[in-house]
Amino acid sequence: MQAEVVWGDRWSENSLTMAHTYMEVACRKKSLVCLAADRSTMAELNQLIDEVGPHIAALKTHVDLVDDWSAEAWTAFCSKANSADLLVFEDRKFADIGGISRKQMSGIYDIRSWADLVTAHLISGPDIVDGLQAGWNDVGRQGGVLLLAQMSSRGNLLVPDYTGKVVSVGKNHAGVFGFIGNGSRPEELKVLRKAVGPGKLIWTPGVNLAVGDGEMGQRYGSPREAILAGSDCIIVGSGIHKAQNPSHKAQAYADASWSAFVERSQSRNAV
Amino acid sequence: MQAEVVWGDRWSENSLTMAHTYMEVACRKKSLVCLAADRSTMAELNQLIDEVGPHIAALKTHVDLVDDWSAEAWTAFCSKANSADLLVFEDRKFADIGGISRKQMSGIYDIRSWADLVTAHLISGPDIVDGLQAGWNDVGRQGGVLLLAQMSSRGNLLVPDYTGKVVSVGKNHAGVFGFIGNGSRPEELKVLRKAVGPGKLIWTPGVNLAVGDGEMGQRYGSPREAILAGSDCIIVGSGIHKAQNPSHKAQAYADASWSAFVERSQSRNAV
Repeated sequence: MQAEVVWGDRWSENSLTMAHTYMEVACRKKSLVCLAADRSTMAELNQLIDEVGPHIAALKTHVDLVDDWSAEAWTAFCSKANSADLLVFEDRKFADIGGISRKQMSGIYDIRSWADLVTAHLISGPDIVDGLQAGWNDVGRQGGVLLLAQMSSRGNLLVPDYTGKVVSVGKNHAGVFGFIGNGSRPEELKVLRKAVGPGKLIWTPGVNLAVGDGEMGQRYGSPREAILAGSDCIIVGSGIHKAQNPSHKAQAYADASWSAFVERSQSRNAV
Repeated sequence: MQAEVVWGDRWSENSLTMAHTYMEVACRKKSLVCLAADRSTMAELNQLIDEVGPHIAALKTHVDLVDDWSAEAWTAFCSKANSADLLVFEDRKFADIGGISRKQMSGIYDIRSWADLVTAHLISGPDIVDGLQAGWNDVGRQGGVLLLAQMSSRGNLLVPDYTGKVVSVGKNHAGVFGFIGNGSRPEELKVLRKAVGPGKLIWTPGVNLAVGDGEMGQRYGSPREAILAGSDCIIVGSGIHKAQNPSHKAQAYADASWSAFVERSQSRNAV
């Protein structure tokens, strides 16, 4: 299936190379699933790729909470991810000014050299996107910035007015890959998609095949509803890696996301 | 000079151990100056302590942009800072949920083991403060969180309504050391101090002895005006480390900050 056909406006309205790369990966893998790999050892991280690599399109990492990190081990881990046709998405939540963020892409972790995607808050202003893109450019790479538009944590300050500002700036910035939204409430997600328009991608945590099955009262949305409401990737953590058989469960998430995506694509084409 | 006397309400209304530690250091050094040590090599960082250590109360670091970082070199650097009676302030701008932020205090950099202070955005909600304090607690240490209340970067989203929410939550949270405000506009700083009340500390970048002398049109405020308006520490970068004689310049900042502080303290006692 040709990515530009099935993604439609999302492909034609988004000029960022990394956005097209993601859309192609998702079509090759028939999966709109990103695994939240919040593990603290290299062994656990590598094991996740071995178990679920074929069924996911991207791997969300937190490099700064890996206790036995080394440059060599991380390079090997990223090679393994690339071999498994996975985008590596460092959920760093950059939040400093542009010039500092650019430098924070280097240092020991050297995020610019291996991350395909990073998260950032727009709190410090739009220069952060330019700073992060300059970071990739410093090593001859290209990447994409996902801006936090919504969070689900208690007492967070991403209120509608704040979200509106982030979307308004981010949708017109070529370096922005897309937005992180909240996948647990499809109705709110539709509103976000409408504000974002057709071009930028929306990635959503808060999704689980067992809806309402969250820890500590957290509410989850279903993968199908999230994709139909405008999500382009569901970010799944414990729903996969705490399953008895993570590989089977990842396959189930991939199938649910892909069939909803095909349904969305066909209904768009039918209009 | 006894710290609790000269700091008055700031001492009695702030129960955080690290807040008292800072107030004591400032009195011993007769300096309310934090040097922004945004250097990318260990040699430059160590040189800064050698040159200006006696004249400053704290050193603001960005551990993740040091290109030749190693655990051993960083430990030696922090020992040197401690020997110079300096607080180490990692300007990490944490911005994730509480549980992740707690883990981000560990990892290779192990910030919890050497940072006395860290910055955080309240964007994800107040649990981030508990997460960071839990991080210090995990290694039997205590520290302080400085919340970003204002920034001066172009197009930043710390608008008055946002600032108001940060202050309202942070002023009542025991784990909050204080706030980062903008030192370049004394009138706005007075408004922030009034909102914060007497207990929490306010630290301010945007201050320079050569007022209006910023790069690329940046406006600076004077150290004296910032302290009199309610700042408890001026964060100075290029004003010191780009000076022909950084040691002399640091001494000048220390003197300006301390004399303004004594003036403020005396006028308070005179009321």
